[in-house]
Amino acid sequence: MRIPFEQMQAILFSLFVKYGLTEDKARFISKIYCESTLDGINSHGINRVPRFIEYIKNGSVKIDKEAECVGTFGIIERWDGNLGPGMINASKCMDRAIQLAKQNGMGCVALRNTNHWMRGGTYGWQAADAGCIAICFTNTQPNMPPWGGKDSRIGNNPFIVAIPRKGGHVVLDMAISQFAFGKINDYRLQNKKLPFPGGWDMNDELSNDPEQILKKERGLPIGYWKGSALSMVLDMLVTILAAGDSTCKIGQRSYESGISQVFICIYPEIFDDRKLQEKLLEEIIDYTHNVEAMKPGDQTYYPGERTLATRQQNLKEGIPVSDEVWQKVLDFLNNS
Amino acid sequence: MRIPFEQMQAILFSLFVKYGLTEDKARFISKIYCESTLDGINSHGINRVPRFIEYIKNGSVKIDKEAECVGTFGIIERWDGNLGPGMINASKCMDRAIQLAKQNGMGCVALRNTNHWMRGGTYGWQAADAGCIAICFTNTQPNMPPWGGKDSRIGNNPFIVAIPRKGGHVVLDMAISQFAFGKINDYRLQNKKLPFPGGWDMNDELSNDPEQILKKERGLPIGYWKGSALSMVLDMLVTILAAGDSTCKIGQRSYESGISQVFICIYPEIFDDRKLQEKLLEEIIDYTHNVEAMKPGDQTYYPGERTLATRQQNLKEGIPVSDEVWQKVLDFLNNS
Repeated sequence: MRIPFEQMQAILFSLFVKYGLTEDKARFISKIYCESTLDGINSHGINRVPRFIEYIKNGSVKIDKEAECVGTFGIIERWDGNLGPGMINASKCMDRAIQLAKQNGMGCVALRNTNHWMRGGTYGWQAADAGCIAICFTNTQPNMPPWGGKDSRIGNNPFIVAIPRKGGHVVLDMAISQFAFGKINDYRLQNKKLPFPGGWDMNDELSNDPEQILKKERGLPIGYWKGSALSMVLDMLVTILAAGDSTCKIGQRSYESGISQVFICIYPEIFDDRKLQEKLLEEIIDYTHNVEAMKPGDQTYYPGERTLATRQQNLKEGIPVSDEVWQKVLDFLNNS
Repeated sequence: MRIPFEQMQAILFSLFVKYGLTEDKARFISKIYCESTLDGINSHGINRVPRFIEYIKNGSVKIDKEAECVGTFGIIERWDGNLGPGMINASKCMDRAIQLAKQNGMGCVALRNTNHWMRGGTYGWQAADAGCIAICFTNTQPNMPPWGGKDSRIGNNPFIVAIPRKGGHVVLDMAISQFAFGKINDYRLQNKKLPFPGGWDMNDELSNDPEQILKKERGLPIGYWKGSALSMVLDMLVTILAAGDSTCKIGQRSYESGISQVFICIYPEIFDDRKLQEKLLEEIIDYTHNVEAMKPGDQTYYPGERTLATRQQNLKEGIPVSDEVWQKVLDFLNNS
């Protein structure tokens, strides 16, 4: 089914108010969920709402708490999320990084004790809308084995880079796993193999069989040993800078909570050559767009390009949502 | 053969002086080449010296030029490398980023018109030795197809993250290609297949056959479409921030020259809890070290761990160098 943006937001707003969020916060969070779904990221949009409600109910997300600054060191700030809703905390910290960047050229906020920020790209689009370049990343619960190891002890630690652009921002929103487990499950439901290996089977062999991989959640990092190392250093950076919990600690909890994040912003307009920068950016996009396709029908995109196309289509036609998920959301709203 | 560090450095020093570098610069560059070789990175150490000499001879590297600051914007500086030796330029810019970080918590230097920095890890170790966290990256000539495209139009753009640590720094030094072409050639020489696909063959199929991949240099990005996107945004960042040349422009030259780089530093000692940070870092390392091995004999390492082990071994036993490469270096030194 397809649901118009406004309708989805109104329903989610009511739902979040029902579960105790203030109207301001309910409005803010419902907007974030709807925008992610509008952009086609249902996994961290509407599909994720039931789990968010569960986390409110089990106390992992504390709806009356919010991130606050606990230390300032030059252009770096440390914030404590107090286990409040991850989207509000992350957005607040990105706002602060934007402010710092506009004052100093660059700014950095490290956040601890926060919760899942849902779609990482949200904060990339936020910074780019404010005219800032952003680099931000988060740690997660363990869901991939470190290279050479048997058990999942590193996180898929999403890594986001955003670059403001008049014709549509460039936004890379990339987990360090080759495939999200949600994606692997989609393949399973369709009885299809993954196009490339995506995790380890029960015999400790790399596999592209979703059924086998999902028996034990051991995802494959992008680039094998390279992504494994990248995941580790991202965890180290968020943990050290925020003085927060690492993937090790997060993994000891029943629910993924109390994670650490870093938000870095750069304000490119401090340079006196914004026009030149824009020209240089278009040159890179044109060069990669204009490449001959490898296989008929293939096409090359810049990061964020398809998101924007999906957004425009869904604004016009309504947002595609699974009947089952939508019913679940309505049940949460209508039942006690 | 194995050559002691001091002997290698003395020979390279004489070689660089012969090719017109000042004694100071010759000493500096020979040290960088020797340290990379000592660490086992021969590809960007001694093996690369002949090409560096060629680049001096063909004018791509201008030995009398050096990087200079061309603009300051808050804590961000822009430098122009004036096509001087890449190692001297990069090291100077990393030094400046370290200074800025020690003053402000964080610093950033963007460098344009520079040359190959050889081993990117060099500047990570440099920052970590100075007590700084570093994130730095460079663009390169095109050597991988953007995802969906036929021809190489994105670079393998090495990406480095360094974190200072008493027991041995954490240094991730990672090109965005799954395998370096030098590594692919090593497999070819040994008549072996790559353990995983590393590039495209002449039929536009992914291949692990070094012979086939090397017929046309089209490397595979880590994580397929993910590394393709990551390579693009790294190129965009260095190009915009430095107002320098992108992979597109670099690819139009006969030699890889005039590249762009970014050096970001964070000074973790500005926080008043260095001891806590150290504890948190060890926790991550212990957690990933202590994982059960997936296959007998496998082991998990933190990024930089094996480099340090190689360094210690080679300091004791001398640095392994191919006879052929060493003879080439001696020929450059002894012949006119």
